[in-house]
Amino acid sequence: MSGHMNDRMRGKMELLKERIKKDGIVDGKILKVDSFLNHQVDVLLLAEIAKEFKKRFEGESITKVLTLETSGIPIATMVAATYQVPMVVARKTVGKNIEGEVYSTQVESYSKHTTFEVLVGKKFLSSEDKILMIDDILSNGCALLGLTQLILDAGAKIVGAGIVIEKGFQIGGELMRTAGVRVESLVNITEITESGEIIFA
Amino acid sequence: MSGHMNDRMRGKMELLKERIKKDGIVDGKILKVDSFLNHQVDVLLLAEIAKEFKKRFEGESITKVLTLETSGIPIATMVAATYQVPMVVARKTVGKNIEGEVYSTQVESYSKHTTFEVLVGKKFLSSEDKILMIDDILSNGCALLGLTQLILDAGAKIVGAGIVIEKGFQIGGELMRTAGVRVESLVNITEITESGEIIFA
Repeated sequence: MSGHMNDRMRGKMELLKERIKKDGIVDGKILKVDSFLNHQVDVLLLAEIAKEFKKRFEGESITKVLTLETSGIPIATMVAATYQVPMVVARKTVGKNIEGEVYSTQVESYSKHTTFEVLVGKKFLSSEDKILMIDDILSNGCALLGLTQLILDAGAKIVGAGIVIEKGFQIGGELMRTAGVRVESLVNITEITESGEIIFA
Repeated sequence: MSGHMNDRMRGKMELLKERIKKDGIVDGKILKVDSFLNHQVDVLLLAEIAKEFKKRFEGESITKVLTLETSGIPIATMVAATYQVPMVVARKTVGKNIEGEVYSTQVESYSKHTTFEVLVGKKFLSSEDKILMIDDILSNGCALLGLTQLILDAGAKIVGAGIVIEKGFQIGGELMRTAGVRVESLVNITEITESGEIIFA
């Protein structure tokens, strides 16, 4: 990658930071990005995000993109489209009938203070697969740990995790990296101040 | 559109029919398309689906694509990307904190025999908007009716609904069309036989 490309990519991620500062809503230690990443999704930004993940994981062979419902689905869809590989959505069990055998694990919810089960049909993860995990926000890492467990249960290879926004002041990123998982975060928030200011790494 | 294009498009939708016959799983009157549209998503098929919706709604001005979580999200993402407009996900309320005022309505679930609330932040739907609704499957039309209600509450224009699989033997399609909503289904299933065979219109 040339220096020029690096500058351009830095520029794109600067735009993401500006967007977070402008449109993100801080509620305690929770950052809401409802207006461009979750509830309403800016597909132009999404295309840039997908391109950036492809750059970050350049040279890696990826057979499937895995996310956990719900907020990571649009990002995972666009990343999978960029790689032209299938996208798999791990499901929260409530009311879901999944045909056949499943891999399942428990995930804690940081924002809801509950534990829920996530599962994926066994036929959608095989030992031949090389999996890129995708999620919108990395906080305490419980969602990502759950996905990691599902991949390990299937005997598939973990290529890494592509995260749009890492909250560096929470333990998730450190936890995953210490466990040997490559985590690529497009922006890293090191602090949300008392006054609600967002500080980037 | 030339006859040649029509043939090509028919060909694409024939592929979708073949895929449903090959990989769809029939469970009573419920059709599961987990292996290519829901749980695992074939992004190449998704790209064709998005292109086809763009053809069907050619000439229409569309400012936003609206879907209901969860299974319509990948399709809506790709359609919104094709139009380069924002995608909005109406949320099921359980445990969701949405910032600010919302439009909300009740939706019945056909497969779960329950009623749930769906909502969308008021700031994401305005009276200036021209909305294309997207969903994977149209059965009794409750999800689509819910989305329609949210759009009407916002005073926005309903362009229509893009549905991948309509179950023509259920009332949803007739209900929506009678109500004056343009419904474009890529395939229409008129019957699922006792033996589980899928019959197309």
